[in-house]
Amino acid sequence: MEFKSKIKTIEWIDNYSRMVDQTVVPYEYKFVNITTGEDMFQAIRNMIVRGAPAIGVAGAHGIVLFAQEGSEKYIDRSEFVKWLIDKAEYMKTSRPTAVNLMWAVNKQIDIIKNSKSDIKGIVEELKINAINLEDEDIEINKRIGDYGAAVVPKGAAILTHCNAGALATVGYGTALGVVRSAFAKDNTVKVFADETRPRQQGARITTFELAMDGIPVTLITDGMCSYFMKKGMIDMVVVGADRIAANGDTANKIGTYTVAIAAKYHNIPFYIAAPLSTIDISIKSGDEIPIEERSHDEVTHINGKRICAENVNIINPGFDVTPHELITGIITEKGILKPDYNKSIAEAFKL
Amino acid sequence: MEFKSKIKTIEWIDNYSRMVDQTVVPYEYKFVNITTGEDMFQAIRNMIVRGAPAIGVAGAHGIVLFAQEGSEKYIDRSEFVKWLIDKAEYMKTSRPTAVNLMWAVNKQIDIIKNSKSDIKGIVEELKINAINLEDEDIEINKRIGDYGAAVVPKGAAILTHCNAGALATVGYGTALGVVRSAFAKDNTVKVFADETRPRQQGARITTFELAMDGIPVTLITDGMCSYFMKKGMIDMVVVGADRIAANGDTANKIGTYTVAIAAKYHNIPFYIAAPLSTIDISIKSGDEIPIEERSHDEVTHINGKRICAENVNIINPGFDVTPHELITGIITEKGILKPDYNKSIAEAFKL
Repeated sequence: MEFKSKIKTIEWIDNYSRMVDQTVVPYEYKFVNITTGEDMFQAIRNMIVRGAPAIGVAGAHGIVLFAQEGSEKYIDRSEFVKWLIDKAEYMKTSRPTAVNLMWAVNKQIDIIKNSKSDIKGIVEELKINAINLEDEDIEINKRIGDYGAAVVPKGAAILTHCNAGALATVGYGTALGVVRSAFAKDNTVKVFADETRPRQQGARITTFELAMDGIPVTLITDGMCSYFMKKGMIDMVVVGADRIAANGDTANKIGTYTVAIAAKYHNIPFYIAAPLSTIDISIKSGDEIPIEERSHDEVTHINGKRICAENVNIINPGFDVTPHELITGIITEKGILKPDYNKSIAEAFKL
Repeated sequence: MEFKSKIKTIEWIDNYSRMVDQTVVPYEYKFVNITTGEDMFQAIRNMIVRGAPAIGVAGAHGIVLFAQEGSEKYIDRSEFVKWLIDKAEYMKTSRPTAVNLMWAVNKQIDIIKNSKSDIKGIVEELKINAINLEDEDIEINKRIGDYGAAVVPKGAAILTHCNAGALATVGYGTALGVVRSAFAKDNTVKVFADETRPRQQGARITTFELAMDGIPVTLITDGMCSYFMKKGMIDMVVVGADRIAANGDTANKIGTYTVAIAAKYHNIPFYIAAPLSTIDISIKSGDEIPIEERSHDEVTHINGKRICAENVNIINPGFDVTPHELITGIITEKGILKPDYNKSIAEAFKL
């Protein structure tokens, strides 16, 4: 039985990209149309679209937007290609940690470099690829969901951190894809959502999308996870990923590592759910993953209001790295990868 | 060298209790005068005054306020005593977890029961005892601070959770008393303050009082602690306590247990700083400590604004229990208690 989610986070329409504006969820559920490459860069940077798989597709859309602009600007094909590749490299710098952005934009760069078509033809090929990536993302998430659902115990309470849901992808979700597939089989499955300070994606986005799809969710503050684990109220943890190294070390939203340590202490299975495009086999370990340092206002202010004294130091890493030894399995579209991750990841890429 | 703090959280003045209104910190630093026993009950319940040692003193003040009211209401001494003991029992129900409240109110009840004086005399004795508890609290905190400072490494970064500071006590603080004493000897000592959702006492109160006293503080979100521990940026953890069982299990603000697990994982010393009045030798383990369930709005709203979807389940325990095996030592006014806590706590009570 397939779970039908109501959510389509990002979609190419004719000649622009339409996306859910995630900065106003849960207060509003509205779409914005992104019509230029630069607007896409800003939408990614300012987290109008967020979530590793979703910003991958957003990056691909952004290249189509730049290509459309370039096609009106250049007559010379090689000038067009040079300009567009520059823009594609620029798009990759909109956010540093999630590797799906680089992966998707690199797919577009390959098309630009290898195309035999004229300028119009290149634009068309980029558009077709971008739309394919959308469909592929949903397909991949459903496969992740189905593999993951197989390890969800009956009536399980699943803790998740941040939002690796439909709104972090084109639809369906990775960690919440596992939840959706499990819930379709067993509607006694339920979710505990970490608030996920500083940006509260768990409170704002995860509770919103689960409520929208009718899946029971309990919101907790980030520090509470161990309390509920000790009480036996959490059966497993499933989170998404922004980048996974060849050894399984996983960068995800700040706070994930703390949850992983707490899960280990209580012998609770801790899973990552992510497409293979999140795995960066070019890096050996999590030490090499660049961690984005974000605005200090995210820590010192909530909804525009200061929550602390003046003259306070802030360090605001957007992500942390959970070492592979804390990870029970990595749920991908090719099955659940298990330790030794160096081996299982390498094998998954050969499939 | 003694550290001079600018803060006096609660103080008996003539015939009323004056306290810092902690619900408006850090936006305002203002005093409120509590002039009736019922107003004190509400001030404790609504956290105008909070922190285990401070609400102990507040409870003692509250009994003086009720005694003053009773002395105008009753002529018959035994009717007065009966009424006042009822009010004292009522005062103890204002908050359930911090045992200092029960401890301080019980001290007043002992006076009421054992006094040989007339009604006026009883009121006077209760007032004298309440003022003594204030002075004693500051003295005890300074002793805690000095014992604790001896185990703070040079230039240490000390992580704390919630606020166990001057504003959680009459002045000086328990966990932050350790910080103040350490800082007086070595001004390269610094603090990492957990925000402490849901009520953000770390962000609101700890940053405020440390900034006021010129001690460097870095504010982090609750999920970040492990990130900084892994980077070697945290040298020790010191937190307060709301109730400590005979075996050392310690109830403190929700989220403390998660920090303790993270500290253990990174081999970082984790200390409790609390007066002996926080230890409840009548209970064997943390399982017997009642955990206050607080309003769901604390989780779903910040500064009056909803932060999550509607139709979300909430569980909001105000405290969690850190098991004794995660605690390196309990810093008290009689020295640092070490495992086996059953023994060291019993011995401390004999001193």
